[in-house]
Formats: sequence, structure tokens, C-alpha cells
Amino acid sequence: MTATSPPRRGRGRPGNDQAAVLRAAVDLFNRKGYDATSIGDLAKELGVTKPAIYHHFDSKEDLLRLALDDALDELTTVVSNASAGSGTAYARLRDVIHRSVEVLVAHQPSVTLLLRIRGNTAVEQGALERRRWLDDRLAELVRDAVADGALRDDVPPDLVSRLLFGMVNSLVEWYRPEGTYDAASVADALVAIAFDGLARGQA
Amino acid sequence: MTATSPPRRGRGRPGNDQAAVLRAAVDLFNRKGYDATSIGDLAKELGVTKPAIYHHFDSKEDLLRLALDDALDELTTVVSNASAGSGTAYARLRDVIHRSVEVLVAHQPSVTLLLRIRGNTAVEQGALERRRWLDDRLAELVRDAVADGALRDDVPPDLVSRLLFGMVNSLVEWYRPEGTYDAASVADALVAIAFDGLARGQA
Repeated sequence: MTATSPPRRGRGRPGNDQAAVLRAAVDLFNRKGYDATSIGDLAKELGVTKPAIYHHFDSKEDLLRLALDDALDELTTVVSNASAGSGTAYARLRDVIHRSVEVLVAHQPSVTLLLRIRGNTAVEQGALERRRWLDDRLAELVRDAVADGALRDDVPPDLVSRLLFGMVNSLVEWYRPEGTYDAASVADALVAIAFDGLARGQA
Repeated sequence: MTATSPPRRGRGRPGNDQAAVLRAAVDLFNRKGYDATSIGDLAKELGVTKPAIYHHFDSKEDLLRLALDDALDELTTVVSNASAGSGTAYARLRDVIHRSVEVLVAHQPSVTLLLRIRGNTAVEQGALERRRWLDDRLAELVRDAVADGALRDDVPPDLVSRLLFGMVNSLVEWYRPEGTYDAASVADALVAIAFDGLARGQA
């Protein structure tokens, strides 16, 4: 993925044009599907010409790569820090889940796209590989916390990480930024349910 | 939804043909998207003619309706029984979550389809209305269990039901029937995490 060209910030158009095109592309990919969306569709959506889009981006795949990097970069930083950090595995796991919710909410459109891709192109395969790396780091943290005696050991660690991240990722389907709950409240609720349980008198 | 015609079991072809066509349709809708799939695509996939499909089903929408009913009927029974049942709200909620996992696993392809539709047709809108009814019944059970003092009251009940069902629904993305865990093990793990929490020494 590092071999493809960076966004062309220097070509004489303001950077916010480029960001707006990328945002519109992500929304359109989420609505119509990446495969079914053409640069022509995107130009029409934005009310510009196709060359106006190619002024900023080499190709549709270039847009996809930037969108998936947007979904993955911050999450990768959060998970890397948790993996390498000090403190107990339990505290780092609890913290990384909390932060993951906040990252997902901050990047909801691009994370939605990430969760829908199926590996049809090299760019998608690269993103899925990065997702697997994240999943592996989290599964390691879960195993470490079990080994420390901080997490229950009657549920298989790989099932724990699947279900934890299933609950986090489900946010893309229903979370609305304009709704009642901000990211921090949802993160608090999710962490409380997952780690302390819903049943009363447990904590 | 009750006004549309039932499957044509009596038209002289064995019923298992019809079930096989429906299964293939659900798989194709999940892979290509419902809107992008034609009866011609389905016929090609099955290696039959279009009239062979119309022998069993009136229309593409007829196939969609049957698939969504397959996803919803058993879940509706489970949730209705839990709503109307005896026992504490807490026990009924715990049980309905367990059963929902089992129903999802047993009907994974059609539930996957259900979770992807966006309401573009009358059939889809009918299914989304049935989903909302289920969500409302579950939110009621959560509120009742909080009112009984059995569930923690520091997480808003609507957030609890969103996150609980987010975790259940996430199964469609990663559960593999041929994998290590059967439906009952996954249901046990999910219920243990959600109600008793991951942290050790809580139960």
C-alpha cells in the first residue's frame, strides 16, 4: 500500500476541496457499494466534471485507499500503543475498547466502508490484512488478561475478542452523531456491559 | 405482507427444488446485493431457465419476502414468548438473548440479508417494521429488568438493547457453522459476557 501515490495536495486546488471529494466518495461507496460506483457517478453527485476529480485523485482505487487508511490509521495507533503499553493487560484492554469506540464514532463513514469491503481488489486485501493484524493484537491482549487471572477463563479468548469487537463494530449500523449519546457515553456503556456485566450487584 | 401469494408448492415440482432456489437466491442477494441481482442472474447461477424460476416464485420480490420471513418468523416467536412469558424479566431477557443467537445461527443467510436491507421496497419496509417491533419488545424487557432491580441502572436501557443486539447481530459477519464453536457455545459465551461481565470474580 505504501507504493501508491499520496494525495496531490500541491496541484493548485485548496485541500478542503480534496477532503470534500473524499467525503462524498465514501458516502457514495457506502450507499451504492464500491464496485457499483464510478468516478462519473461521483462527479455527478458533486456537480463537477470527471477531470475535476482526477485533478485530486489518480483513480477510484486511490479514493478507496485513502478512505480505508482514514478508518485504520488511528485505530492502528490506539491498538499499537495498547499492545506495547505499560499497565496490566486488563487495564490496557479496557482502555483500548473504550478508545476504539471513540475512534469508530469519529471516523464512522470510513469505518462503515471498511467493514463492508470483501477483498475484491489489492487495496481491499491490504486493508483486510491490517484488520487481521488489529484483531490478532486484541486477541493477544485478551489472552494476556486471562493469563493474569483478570479475565474469566471459561470463555475462549478468541470468542471474547470476536464478541467484543462485534459489539464495537455494530455501532456503525445504529450510532447517529446527532442522537442522544456522545461517543464517550457510548464507550462508557459498552465497557461497563462487556467487563462488569449487566446483572446488578456484580461490580 | 399477508396479501402476497404463498409459495407454489402444488405446481408439480418437488418442494426441495423450491427450497434450493430460495437458498441460492439468498446467497446471491447477499453476495451481489438485492437491487443488483436479477432473476436472470439467479437462473444462470442455478443453471436453469428463467421460466423454471417463475414456476416456483412470482417475482424477485416474492423471493425476498420469503427470505425475510425465514429470518423473522422464528425470532418473532421467541421474542413474543419472552414478552408474554412468566418468570422474572431478567430471566426472560437472558433466555431470549440465548435463543436469539441460536435462531441467528440456524438462519444465518436470511438474517444476513435482513440486516443488509435498507427499505427500498414495500417488502423491505415491512421487514424493517417487524425488526422495529422486535427491538421495541426487547427494550421493554430491558426496562422491566432494570425496574425490578435486576439490571444495572447506570446505562440507559435503549443503549443496553442496542449494544446487546449489536453483539448478537455481529455474528452474521464472522460466525462459520463449520468452525470450532457450535451455536450453543457461542450463545453461552455471549450471555456470560453481557450479563456477568468479562472481569473475573464478579459472578
